Amino acid sequence: MSQPLKFYFDFLNQSSRALYILLEASEIPFEAIPISMLKGEHLTGEFRDNVNRFRKLPAITDHGYQLSENVAIFRHLAREKLVPEHWYPRRHLGRSRIDEYLAWQQTNMGVATTDYFQQKWLVPYLQKTRPADNAVNLASKQLEHTLKEFEQLFLNSRKFMMGDNISYADLSAICEIDQPKSIGYNAFQNHNKLARWYETVREELGPHYKEVLGEFEAKLKGSGSGQQQGVAQAVKQ
Amino acid sequence: MSQPLKFYFDFLNQSSRALYILLEASEIPFEAIPISMLKGEHLTGEFRDNVNRFRKLPAITDHGYQLSENVAIFRHLAREKLVPEHWYPRRHLGRSRIDEYLAWQQTNMGVATTDYFQQKWLVPYLQKTRPADNAVNLASKQLEHTLKEFEQLFLNSRKFMMGDNISYADLSAICEIDQPKSIGYNAFQNHNKLARWYETVREELGPHYKEVLGEFEAKLKGSGSGQQQGVAQAVKQ
Repeated sequence: MSQPLKFYFDFLNQSSRALYILLEASEIPFEAIPISMLKGEHLTGEFRDNVNRFRKLPAITDHGYQLSENVAIFRHLAREKLVPEHWYPRRHLGRSRIDEYLAWQQTNMGVATTDYFQQKWLVPYLQKTRPADNAVNLASKQLEHTLKEFEQLFLNSRKFMMGDNISYADLSAICEIDQPKSIGYNAFQNHNKLARWYETVREELGPHYKEVLGEFEAKLKGSGSGQQQGVAQAVKQ
Repeated sequence: MSQPLKFYFDFLNQSSRALYILLEASEIPFEAIPISMLKGEHLTGEFRDNVNRFRKLPAITDHGYQLSENVAIFRHLAREKLVPEHWYPRRHLGRSRIDEYLAWQQTNMGVATTDYFQQKWLVPYLQKTRPADNAVNLASKQLEHTLKEFEQLFLNSRKFMMGDNISYADLSAICEIDQPKSIGYNAFQNHNKLARWYETVREELGPHYKEVLGEFEAKLKGSGSGQQQGVAQAVKQ
């Protein structure tokens, strides 16, 4: 009678993608429940009242226990489920390093990628207008500064951020960078180290990542035919 | 030959106060190294080059290992040192709940209290001007909204945020609220539940909290005569 974890998500959101990929790659059984942010489904009704009082995505319920916030859900999974060690390694204080990155991401990378995405895609989409040049330029500058800091602070000569093995820091970061990249931002100009790291992470994540990114990009093109169906199609390809 | 943890802090910063109190209350041996943010000591020299590449406070070095970010340092202490269980309880998924609050705090409470503090105190102090009314009003509105959300989302009929025992969520939150409160903001108007919770947490934290808050308020009045000396005085009172 074990109830599977319920995962509420929207692939338009970078943290939803990162956690979805982690769940799949870790082979944690879960029920995938797509929620449309564009339709405001996370703000009203069943979701607000019974799933997530924060009205935010991603969210989980685990045995009736509701939880919000990317980093809190990630740590909950690491504690309560069988998540392979390399995603959040204890060795060499790896967990402290990953915690440090995730905190930095929340107030730096996450703000910059979200702001660019909103100005360039979300606001024009919702208001049926062209992007406002000034706002996009400002967001571009902030994003460029953040990508440079990311490269300097977190990338080095090793394969992944924490060394030879991929961790949740890499997975979370690549999903952040896809947010502007998938709507045309050239994230790699003047960032060779970033480009090499991105390619290595993409290769390592393999089909789980490809499938979710494909679904995200289909949604951007307006050709997504509902997330669950879309994912099912992507899996078959 | 065990080297004590080095803790770099400025009591003007809310996370510095929270971690300092946690270290003291947990009786973790540490070397307290005050860094003056007003003098820009965190941006240059020894600190930037050898202590903290993020140029941020608070920071630690533990056996030569540098770490930044309030939430990352907190979890590092919980893993590597003897922090009493009630600060980060495993029972009833308490850690997941605390993680959720700390993530919310980082993008909500922390932004609102810092913004108010900057507009009302820091910018006028550095520029030797009066606070800009418009900016302060805007920051007040944001803060008021955030305090209301905090009350609704995280406070309930129990003594502390996680139940009968104080946790790092309470400690971190009270230090956030002191940021505007100590420069004259009435945080309790229309917030009876918040006022009751604040009083309970203050009482529970006892002298460690009182000493650090006293030092913070002395710095605000410009009467702080160096942090270490000031703390020593506060301890004697």
